[in-house]
Amino acid sequence: MTSVNRQVRLAKRPVGRPDDSTWEITTEPVPVPGDGQFTVRVHYVSLDPAMRGWLNDVRSYVPPVGIGEVMRAHAVGRVHASKNEKYAVGQLVSGHFGVCDYAVSDGTDVLVVDEELAPAPAWLGALGFPGMTAYFGLLDVGRMKAGETVLVSGAAGAVGSLVGQIAKLNGCRVIGIAGGPEKCSWLTDELGFDIAIDYKSESVGRALHAAAPEGIDIYFDNVGGEILNSALACLRRGSRVVLCGAISGYNATDPQPGPSRYLSLLVNRASMSGFIVFDYLERFPEAMAAMSEWIRRGLIVTREQVETGGIEAFGRTLTMLFDGANTGKLVLRMNEG
Amino acid sequence: MTSVNRQVRLAKRPVGRPDDSTWEITTEPVPVPGDGQFTVRVHYVSLDPAMRGWLNDVRSYVPPVGIGEVMRAHAVGRVHASKNEKYAVGQLVSGHFGVCDYAVSDGTDVLVVDEELAPAPAWLGALGFPGMTAYFGLLDVGRMKAGETVLVSGAAGAVGSLVGQIAKLNGCRVIGIAGGPEKCSWLTDELGFDIAIDYKSESVGRALHAAAPEGIDIYFDNVGGEILNSALACLRRGSRVVLCGAISGYNATDPQPGPSRYLSLLVNRASMSGFIVFDYLERFPEAMAAMSEWIRRGLIVTREQVETGGIEAFGRTLTMLFDGANTGKLVLRMNEG
Repeated sequence: MTSVNRQVRLAKRPVGRPDDSTWEITTEPVPVPGDGQFTVRVHYVSLDPAMRGWLNDVRSYVPPVGIGEVMRAHAVGRVHASKNEKYAVGQLVSGHFGVCDYAVSDGTDVLVVDEELAPAPAWLGALGFPGMTAYFGLLDVGRMKAGETVLVSGAAGAVGSLVGQIAKLNGCRVIGIAGGPEKCSWLTDELGFDIAIDYKSESVGRALHAAAPEGIDIYFDNVGGEILNSALACLRRGSRVVLCGAISGYNATDPQPGPSRYLSLLVNRASMSGFIVFDYLERFPEAMAAMSEWIRRGLIVTREQVETGGIEAFGRTLTMLFDGANTGKLVLRMNEG
Repeated sequence: MTSVNRQVRLAKRPVGRPDDSTWEITTEPVPVPGDGQFTVRVHYVSLDPAMRGWLNDVRSYVPPVGIGEVMRAHAVGRVHASKNEKYAVGQLVSGHFGVCDYAVSDGTDVLVVDEELAPAPAWLGALGFPGMTAYFGLLDVGRMKAGETVLVSGAAGAVGSLVGQIAKLNGCRVIGIAGGPEKCSWLTDELGFDIAIDYKSESVGRALHAAAPEGIDIYFDNVGGEILNSALACLRRGSRVVLCGAISGYNATDPQPGPSRYLSLLVNRASMSGFIVFDYLERFPEAMAAMSEWIRRGLIVTREQVETGGIEAFGRTLTMLFDGANTGKLVLRMNEG
């Protein structure tokens, strides 16, 4: 297995939910680094809801993954061979390595992983893009202030679980929306959320009005759909809706309805803003320092759900996101090489 | 007619479009001012899309008009009797006098009207709330910068026509959406808009892509509905959608669909913000000074459509707004007393 490089490539653009026909696994020789390059043996691959968007042939914030291209993914791996003096063989690094056994890199957007601070998979979660997304989305886009009431959906997911914890440790009251009693207990019992609403067993609108009769100051939206509408109906004056994602509609084949309660933004002098975490690259050091410190002091619980199926399991592991089958950051462990 | 005070009162909350059954005209003696008060003979009443919202029994930015109450309205009139030394009999003033022949005021939110600067009806338009709305919505909420592309709907209306002109004189490229060739010609030929899109005769989406292939920086929305959706599909990175109103749905009896293209806000790092002009009361002097100066220098064309039916015509004049039957600010002239 060490002598070949297996790669998950996009075989066919999915209509609706990705399935086996979406992907093909190809095999080629392990690449050899050129001058200034190094190769990485990939150990952990990040699974992110945003990946679904990268499969659509539409103009967006990044180009779509092309048919036949290796699937784009953030990953952690170990330097395997190096012609770049900054990266030594054996070093653990994170980067946009893609879904493959071996990747070539010139060091662009590569980070050296400190396993003393947190284990490798956490560098795809709290210390990876989900952590950066939660940090800048809540603090910068959402302009969070101590004492505010913060609502987050997809609250047991990679980003949502961090949003709620960052809000809590900064003096906010936090309400999370998640699916099922286990996730909800995790939010309140282990992460310190004030209230968890189980959208699978209760009316989000009613539960939200009961949980925040005065309304909410920030809604951090990971899901879209009817939950966004319920949140809009509960806005306080001057509140902010942060659009991070809309996973409820990512696999829809019909046009999805928009938020019919959007005029709540007008009446409540509120705003709804989108953002892309890649715009904050220059400020990542600030967020990494804060996240590291919070983790070191035990103020933030990081959780990764590491699936062990190896590269063959990439497709079915990705769809776990759309079934809400993960708690915390979903990561795929690659086959041992 | 001078010996009685006729008042338009809310008889019944309308379901859908207001009609004759919505209103009743009552008669009572002309009020006598108490200490610190004065009475105003109302000459011009403002007709505003927002009035429709005030008729609904829902929590909003102002309490609804109660059944049996005099209809709330901004108006211009002349001081008729005074026990307030700041207001002399014969002075022309504007204020929230309501739809009536005579109103009592203690001077709260009352402005002395300078007819040398602009005729009385303009004090309900460019120098009234529509002017303040255009000014703060565009410059403060929309954070307009010279060189940007500004799109405005309801562009031939009281607010829209001013938004476009303020954007033009501040160095923006301006696209207006209005209904019918007369309004569109007015926008381009007399107000200096760069492009006018006639939503009644062309596809707004296609026309907009042709007019702004690089997208728009600001969309000032007065109408909502499908036009909002078309604008969302044309956003540039970092753009701002300013929610001022949504007249297309004000009389709807079915729930109105939300903007299905709202995720364009995410992809384009854009925001959609609502505002209420009353929040800017303290900054009105700044805006009044600017508007006055622009009018004095001939940089802004003010236009009022003065309907002459008198108090009996209030109901049918209001519905002209929903038929797009006005160009510029719609004003009702009250019966001569």
